[in-house]
Amino acid sequence: MPNSISTFAIGIDIGGTTTKFGIVTSDGKILHHDKISSTQFADINLFIEELYKKIFPLIEHYGGIKHCVGIGVGAPNGNYYSGTIEYAPNLIWKGIIPLAFLIQQKFGIKTLLTNDANAAAVGEMIYGIAKNIKHFITITLGTGVGSGIVIDGKILLGHDGFAGELGHTIIRHNGRLHKGTGALGSLESYVSASGVKETALEFLANDIHKTSLLNNYSTNELTSQVVYECAINGDEIANKVFEFTGEILGEALANFVMFSSPEMIVLFGGLANAGELLMKPTKEAMEKNLLPIFRNKVKLVFSSLPEADAAILGASALVWKK
Amino acid sequence: MPNSISTFAIGIDIGGTTTKFGIVTSDGKILHHDKISSTQFADINLFIEELYKKIFPLIEHYGGIKHCVGIGVGAPNGNYYSGTIEYAPNLIWKGIIPLAFLIQQKFGIKTLLTNDANAAAVGEMIYGIAKNIKHFITITLGTGVGSGIVIDGKILLGHDGFAGELGHTIIRHNGRLHKGTGALGSLESYVSASGVKETALEFLANDIHKTSLLNNYSTNELTSQVVYECAINGDEIANKVFEFTGEILGEALANFVMFSSPEMIVLFGGLANAGELLMKPTKEAMEKNLLPIFRNKVKLVFSSLPEADAAILGASALVWKK
Repeated sequence: MPNSISTFAIGIDIGGTTTKFGIVTSDGKILHHDKISSTQFADINLFIEELYKKIFPLIEHYGGIKHCVGIGVGAPNGNYYSGTIEYAPNLIWKGIIPLAFLIQQKFGIKTLLTNDANAAAVGEMIYGIAKNIKHFITITLGTGVGSGIVIDGKILLGHDGFAGELGHTIIRHNGRLHKGTGALGSLESYVSASGVKETALEFLANDIHKTSLLNNYSTNELTSQVVYECAINGDEIANKVFEFTGEILGEALANFVMFSSPEMIVLFGGLANAGELLMKPTKEAMEKNLLPIFRNKVKLVFSSLPEADAAILGASALVWKK
Repeated sequence: MPNSISTFAIGIDIGGTTTKFGIVTSDGKILHHDKISSTQFADINLFIEELYKKIFPLIEHYGGIKHCVGIGVGAPNGNYYSGTIEYAPNLIWKGIIPLAFLIQQKFGIKTLLTNDANAAAVGEMIYGIAKNIKHFITITLGTGVGSGIVIDGKILLGHDGFAGELGHTIIRHNGRLHKGTGALGSLESYVSASGVKETALEFLANDIHKTSLLNNYSTNELTSQVVYECAINGDEIANKVFEFTGEILGEALANFVMFSSPEMIVLFGGLANAGELLMKPTKEAMEKNLLPIFRNKVKLVFSSLPEADAAILGASALVWKK
């Protein structure tokens, strides 16, 4: 046995394009990282076969099954109660997939599954910036907007396991169309990577005579990263895009605070890399929209964990906690 | 001793105008009801003196202090953790009032306090329509809009005891001014009794040439009750007022469902008396704004408890549960 560790867990984070996994110790060290494609295997059994081919040799390497306490999985629309992925719009497997059961059957190792955003929240609670905090919310600002809500030290699941879909709450009545869900004015249609791109295109169209660095990019090239770079280079429209995005996010966060009164809100995901450019207007809008009894109480922070690690750590923590 | 009951609790419900209280048995029978004014005693000590004068003889009548398990109080902006009322806009006592401490000191009986809407939710959970339901939300549609959120059978308090201020969440960006809080577009400014009145006045002003039964009432006379009566008498504008109110309430409820995924939402308070007139547009708007995974799952119902009883029962249950 190459290592002196006695036990370890497997954490798997299934995303729309990539599935990342790691061998994790109980104190949150990721001994080994790897990934496979989430889109290459249209048959879920072939996907699990591929996972097995990659992960099983690692399990052997670190001491074999008897040293593995379990497999934890985070996945979009993952349901902790049933261990299934249900109608995930961003995954290629449609309908209800009994993923925990299939993995457990293949590996012969106890497997638990939860929503990917919930897994990230568990990662923050056990290993990240929300350590020892009993009431907090994590918001993932990536391709989509995910959320994990922690109440009294436990992930909020709701009566059916689907609680915490804050990206789909309506923040602008009859607002922007969400192409995936058909909703009008949902948070995700504004404060996701594609939302930022859409805002930039709208602002450019409305201000067609204004010079902007953004005009140097084709619609295909214009990503939220490009908007960020133009903004830090002083571009007025690009800066307005982040102000607008932060204003909407902050208003939504105020509503969330008046629901569960968390001590902390943790932002992470690609858009969180915009730093103060996003944080400043977000915090201002949040405080402005809060009832006075909630003002200047909530710690609004960025995650301290590498983005990929939070979900792997949190997924692995599912089995450590049991 | 006139009764064979061995123990009882006192439930007190402090409202903006009236404070109601009752002697309650462990199975939720209110043996005696009474009330005093909430506005007549600007000095909180005189208010407690008056409560004592009314309640202490009842305690004696039902067997004395040794048979009383405690006093439970529901009050606007009541904080369970600290036992204080903090900056309640609708009460005459300003600042932070250590109410539980003052009552306990006066009566010599253990006293617990919580938010009035939370007390009502506890009443529903133990004695009402939400019996045995572990995840639900109560919404009080009265002078204001209150809410009590139950997660896993427990009232959601948040890190500081102030969770569940759903009436103050923003539902219309830059919408109607809330005179009490200064917020623009908060739920309470639309779906409260005064919100309904304001909507009616707006609709009348916008449709000045239309005949409406509502035109027979002065602004002072035009209450939400009058709008209701005109609506059931077929008045078009009055009916539109309830459609508009229900649409906003339903959209807000959808957001709440996507937060905590409750099994049930219980509506009560004066406006709930509008019945189907309010329920139909509310339910339609809620379902329309929900992600598919939440649709047709949430039981949207009216409270089965008399309005005054829910809060008294819930307040008394605070001490039974301990």
